[in-house]
Amino acid sequence: MFEKILENVAMQTPLVHNITNYVTVNDVANIVLACGGSPIMADDLTEVEEITSICSSLVLNIGTLNARTILSMIKAGKKANELGLPVILDPVGAGASKLRTNMTFKLLEEVKFSVIRGNISEIKTIYAGSGLTKGVDAAESIEDENINEIIQFTKDLSIGTGAVIATTGATDLVVHHEKAYIIKNGHPMMSKITGSGCMLSAVIGAYCGANPEQLIDSTAAAVCVVGLSGELAYQKTIATGGGTSSFRTHFIDYVSKLDSSLLKEGMKIESR
Amino acid sequence: MFEKILENVAMQTPLVHNITNYVTVNDVANIVLACGGSPIMADDLTEVEEITSICSSLVLNIGTLNARTILSMIKAGKKANELGLPVILDPVGAGASKLRTNMTFKLLEEVKFSVIRGNISEIKTIYAGSGLTKGVDAAESIEDENINEIIQFTKDLSIGTGAVIATTGATDLVVHHEKAYIIKNGHPMMSKITGSGCMLSAVIGAYCGANPEQLIDSTAAAVCVVGLSGELAYQKTIATGGGTSSFRTHFIDYVSKLDSSLLKEGMKIESR
Amino acid sequence: MFEKILENVAMQTPLVHNITNYVTVNDVANIVLACGGSPIMADDLTEVEEITSICSSLVLNIGTLNARTILSMIKAGKKANELGLPVILDPVGAGASKLRTNMTFKLLEEVKFSVIRGNISEIKTIYAGSGLTKGVDAAESIEDENINEIIQFTKDLSIGTGAVIATTGATDLVVHHEKAYIIKNGHPMMSKITGSGCMLSAVIGAYCGANPEQLIDSTAAAVCVVGLSGELAYQKTIATGGGTSSFRTHFIDYVSKLDSSLLKEGMKIESR
Repeated sequence: MFEKILENVAMQTPLVHNITNYVTVNDVANIVLACGGSPIMADDLTEVEEITSICSSLVLNIGTLNARTILSMIKAGKKANELGLPVILDPVGAGASKLRTNMTFKLLEEVKFSVIRGNISEIKTIYAGSGLTKGVDAAESIEDENINEIIQFTKDLSIGTGAVIATTGATDLVVHHEKAYIIKNGHPMMSKITGSGCMLSAVIGAYCGANPEQLIDSTAAAVCVVGLSGELAYQKTIATGGGTSSFRTHFIDYVSKLDSSLLKEGMKIESR
Repeated sequence: MFEKILENVAMQTPLVHNITNYVTVNDVANIVLACGGSPIMADDLTEVEEITSICSSLVLNIGTLNARTILSMIKAGKKANELGLPVILDPVGAGASKLRTNMTFKLLEEVKFSVIRGNISEIKTIYAGSGLTKGVDAAESIEDENINEIIQFTKDLSIGTGAVIATTGATDLVVHHEKAYIIKNGHPMMSKITGSGCMLSAVIGAYCGANPEQLIDSTAAAVCVVGLSGELAYQKTIATGGGTSSFRTHFIDYVSKLDSSLLKEGMKIESR
Repeated sequence: MFEKILENVAMQTPLVHNITNYVTVNDVANIVLACGGSPIMADDLTEVEEITSICSSLVLNIGTLNARTILSMIKAGKKANELGLPVILDPVGAGASKLRTNMTFKLLEEVKFSVIRGNISEIKTIYAGSGLTKGVDAAESIEDENINEIIQFTKDLSIGTGAVIATTGATDLVVHHEKAYIIKNGHPMMSKITGSGCMLSAVIGAYCGANPEQLIDSTAAAVCVVGLSGELAYQKTIATGGGTSSFRTHFIDYVSKLDSSLLKEGMKIESR
């Protein structure tokens, strides 16, 4: 069902402008390349508008936010809005500190986002206008008993912001207005490496960059590809006696090798 | 002998706040996850206190120090002291520049450290109040003929600072007041990848975070685990025809796979 | 033909000061170690001169340039010039933004470079005093039909700047005044990982650091070693069913394993 989306990425090699954290930036660049895009990182206030202008999409990730990059994010975001480019927000740790929470709201005020991707805790922080996360991991999980509730409030949030809302965890929800996808790909070992969330946001950036008219489907496709790569990587890690670092290598490997037919076979998605 | 320490890490998943350098930060995050902790990186002055407050320990690493992060380190360190959390210092390159040497002394003045981990050159710089290191590698090594001398001056340093002093190299020394461990795990290939020291400091952070009442044993356990993982990684690298980058992968893999029984079997530790 | 150059690197373990971008800095540090050097990263204005003074060479990479690091680069560059140390420029993305282009010219004005390494687009930007690159990838390639033209203008540029000019892509050109090497090692998969250019520049830094009197041959040797490692890594990646991340591991592995006899056998170099 996502053949055309993957094809467009492969054909266009979308250039993705990332203003992101210095912890996972190398993984982010490598996964953008692996999924068929081309990454560019630039965060100086004097060049972000020019860099955004030559790109297909912009990904803003607040993982190691500081006073300097905040301004660059807003400036790049406004330029992307002006040019009609997809802008993805990864509100890493929103709720964990006032700086991150306030900055998330500031960004939401100044920039119109196409996709917001976070864990349940970060998304709830945005929804509630307040909240508390323990670090960068989900404080609560998406379970069968609360899934309808989460779909409901992320639909509200989607309508309020105009953005696709991707809430990721053991189960992933991708919601836009009245449409929702439930995705059950992925593996718990993904939480044993740093940056699986950041990497997913960047892949969403590449997919949306090549498919700006199909934001929810591009986001869902990216979530499936990344989750399925995690599953396959886990199998290979176990089969070869590896640990978490081998898993990371296999994970990016599979993103670089996955095609439409493998995706079709392995994706676990339903629409609601 | 360190079963309980490893068990506490596994049970508690200690959240470790790292203010560290941008060279090895990704490896640091991944090894904290591999050893059973959870990493969080935040260095903006306006949020470091809040982030430290939700963590179990704080690791300060001066590898790519700059004017902005210096202030954040002091602020976070004071907060950790106030809350009674373990604080680990990795004085990367102390002695190699006035900035690093002065900053190390400034930190030692403003913050009470639980553990100081460095190579012999860095530790000597701290001891001497002066010194000269060639970059980030040990200028001199710990040999059988000078080991008693090093134990003596690190005991003095431990008494003076109140901290556990971990001096690492081919042989590792972990000293607290009158107690000393001599550890002979590890492999020279660890010096052929960047960040083995930074990673060790972060693992010490995780272990001490979960065992704040057992700082010397937690530090020694971390040194053994990391060194033994280096040995096993070297064997696997050779067996599979790999080079330094494969070694890095295997190294983190083993940290993620090592348990008490493997540790017991492989650790080479004696107390003095 | 490059035995002596490799031997000098192995004997001296040149310390290489890198002021570089935070995207690929970890790979850069690891490849400097892999090729036989020792990396040190320091970018604070107050310490760069001291750090340069204890090093064998300096590599300036503008990949994630900002207002703070610009000044540090100039200061370190001037110190290296004063001490007669080789200085390598990697003008990442010159032409992609005014900041990068202007900064490249500013650096060229203030610092005398020993080697300038970039893709054809970046080198053309420097030559033309203007230009346009799409991100960090080459907008045009070096083909048989334009190779003489490129050799000609890079010779001019070499004479104008005094530097060795290394223009890299599918075919690599290393030019100094009237001398030119054409190198055909390498593999397209190198463009599917981030940082192959940055890593090459750092290896050039290590080689020139150990061989300051043989800048063109050191640069050519580094280009051959890195390219050949890419070829061998591709073969191993395919043979083991890996993807882009495995390729990266194998690539650095081969740099760490390559010796003069393997190089002699595999290098594809001609002088013009």
